[in-house]
Amino acid sequence: MLLCENYTSHEDSVKTPYCTTHAATGLLLYNSPVMFEFTVEAQDGRARAGRFLTPHGELLTPLFTPVGTQAAVKTLTPAQVEDTGATLVLANTYHLYLRPGDEIVRDLGGLHPFMHWSRPLLTDSGGFQVFSLAAIRKIDDEGVTFKSHIDGSLHRFTPEKAIAVQENLGADIVMVLDECAPPYDYSYVQRAVERTHRWAERCLKVRTRADQALFGIVQGGVFPDLRTASAQFIASLPFEGYAIGGLSVGETKSEMYAMVELVNDILPVNRPRYLMGVGAPEDLIEGVRRGVDIFDCVLPTRLARHHAAFSPEGRLNLQNASFARDERPLDSSCDCYTCRTFSRAYLRHLIVARETLAGTLLSIHNLRSLIRLMEEIRLAIQNHTFEALYSEWLARWRGNAKRDYTEEISS
Amino acid sequence: MLLCENYTSHEDSVKTPYCTTHAATGLLLYNSPVMFEFTVEAQDGRARAGRFLTPHGELLTPLFTPVGTQAAVKTLTPAQVEDTGATLVLANTYHLYLRPGDEIVRDLGGLHPFMHWSRPLLTDSGGFQVFSLAAIRKIDDEGVTFKSHIDGSLHRFTPEKAIAVQENLGADIVMVLDECAPPYDYSYVQRAVERTHRWAERCLKVRTRADQALFGIVQGGVFPDLRTASAQFIASLPFEGYAIGGLSVGETKSEMYAMVELVNDILPVNRPRYLMGVGAPEDLIEGVRRGVDIFDCVLPTRLARHHAAFSPEGRLNLQNASFARDERPLDSSCDCYTCRTFSRAYLRHLIVARETLAGTLLSIHNLRSLIRLMEEIRLAIQNHTFEALYSEWLARWRGNAKRDYTEEISS
Repeated sequence: MLLCENYTSHEDSVKTPYCTTHAATGLLLYNSPVMFEFTVEAQDGRARAGRFLTPHGELLTPLFTPVGTQAAVKTLTPAQVEDTGATLVLANTYHLYLRPGDEIVRDLGGLHPFMHWSRPLLTDSGGFQVFSLAAIRKIDDEGVTFKSHIDGSLHRFTPEKAIAVQENLGADIVMVLDECAPPYDYSYVQRAVERTHRWAERCLKVRTRADQALFGIVQGGVFPDLRTASAQFIASLPFEGYAIGGLSVGETKSEMYAMVELVNDILPVNRPRYLMGVGAPEDLIEGVRRGVDIFDCVLPTRLARHHAAFSPEGRLNLQNASFARDERPLDSSCDCYTCRTFSRAYLRHLIVARETLAGTLLSIHNLRSLIRLMEEIRLAIQNHTFEALYSEWLARWRGNAKRDYTEEISS
Repeated sequence: MLLCENYTSHEDSVKTPYCTTHAATGLLLYNSPVMFEFTVEAQDGRARAGRFLTPHGELLTPLFTPVGTQAAVKTLTPAQVEDTGATLVLANTYHLYLRPGDEIVRDLGGLHPFMHWSRPLLTDSGGFQVFSLAAIRKIDDEGVTFKSHIDGSLHRFTPEKAIAVQENLGADIVMVLDECAPPYDYSYVQRAVERTHRWAERCLKVRTRADQALFGIVQGGVFPDLRTASAQFIASLPFEGYAIGGLSVGETKSEMYAMVELVNDILPVNRPRYLMGVGAPEDLIEGVRRGVDIFDCVLPTRLARHHAAFSPEGRLNLQNASFARDERPLDSSCDCYTCRTFSRAYLRHLIVARETLAGTLLSIHNLRSLIRLMEEIRLAIQNHTFEALYSEWLARWRGNAKRDYTEEISS
């Protein structure tokens, strides 16, 4: 039985998952009492330290999820990703549906063996990329017709299709198809929320795999009334987890944080909460403080390919001539392979010499930085010292001259 | 003392090197009885299995040397290079002199700590790149004036400069400056041989580091009389090793093999012999059969970036649609990370999706393939079964439809 056979014990796992079979049909039953159980082990204010059991091991939350868009975290082998301490990796349904095709991935055993990632995986629904990358031909209550950004070919995603594709890909956590609207257009957001709710129900109805957790998504832009209504409706549906979508798409930080707090106060406490596409360091700590358990973002790997690194001094642009003779590691407090091994001078040389190894080494460091931050946060929650960590971290952050990690990397 | 302090014990090392100091001047003495000792442990025909002691450990020969042009083997971390079984890595003096500059590398402790390679390193003299990449302004008996291929700036290399730069870089094995002429132009080659001989003497005269082996280079194009004269002259000088240059630059395979055999029959038996810039699989086995101990070539890593892999079936162009659902590893007989981990279908997906991870994974496999071939050859020499291995290998090679590894990768 897939659910049991695929289970890989995680180093931090303590429980043995099991699965049940419907006697008459032989179908796997959803929501066994153990699988996808989410346990809040400690709470400090709204911040939670939890455990989420999946077929590929237990996830310790809060956690940051590296993005492996095309079934690969850019420039890194899965062994290198594992070394950063990553436990969950996200892959993009839109990209994999187009290339190599979800049926090929299914026939090769699913994403786990395909990309050789033995820990839990998450796929998005493909919706966000349809709305951001593809040329949309038609969106209606049934679904969305779009042109591939690769070859212009015509495709159609419906809630049913998004689930079918994700069932072929075989991640541990899959997402409902939703509509992400521009955050300030009230009537557009209102219509998108309505559609997102209908699509959420249809996704729940057609799912067939008991070894995949399905997460609902709350929309509503920056409007408290729409966010409240959406959170209440989505929370009323029997998902294994709940996500907050449509943020970090142009609104202000304080608007984002307000929406996160509002939504999390409505979502059930005994299910994981996932803030989609958010991963700047300050957003991680602010998000956890408002009850978020899971984050993902391309920021650390994209920054790396733009020669920038997280550091206690703020954003380091390694291309700068000032690093030419700098013997120090990127971050002397960091335990990653890059910081244990190379000087800033060497990294700068690789960048100037256009060696792609620079992107690899900076990706390792940037991912480890965020994952280490989450490990520290988790420990602080368990020790009920989260507020102290938060204040200290924020003071350093505010004193930091180079704190904008997102400048110049939109390409 | 540098020679002793820098010594890192290699897993296969059995001897402790030592160094002596000239009492009056405090200068290190060259050619201690142990350092750079080359021992032929077994011989089978002309093929030799040897050991070469360097400050960073003992090299088992014959061996293949990956090329790390700019102090990095392209797309690979040093940990990944080590995993391929590589023991010696080559870095290019021309590139490092221009970028980041040999004085910066010296000030940062030399190439070993700079690029974090703890095993032996070799640098070329820079001459080959001056003649192949730069715009030459003037070549005379004193040296060569050239324009940087990066920014057009003017530079001058002399034998003395080539040694000084390589002493700053600090590799275990360094090369004399030589002139590589077009192989078929007799009078040009004759003049280049003469110049190469004078430059070899000057390099020997100005070297100051006792912890670097200096190798002489035999030139002479495809002309037996010039090769003979050059081999005799270079062999008469007190180098720690001898290289054959000016081959694999346009001559036929049989011309190359004939020159290698002719030169090796003249070079001293108790010094390592290095065939520069040669690394196609058939050239490795043919070279060893004619007495070569050391090879280097960009072929395995360059092929990788052009989506091609060594395999028992010959050259695999992984981009081909036929691999889209191929669950097999690249080479089921290979023990590299790539073959132990990924399917051809996944590698093909990475290539089609333009993920640079494809280059990393194919580089790991291609390097391991050549290094494994050398390990097999060494064992066969020790067991006196080299001729059987050679015949078997060549029969498979000749039966191989896709045996040209060098097509379409000159860029």
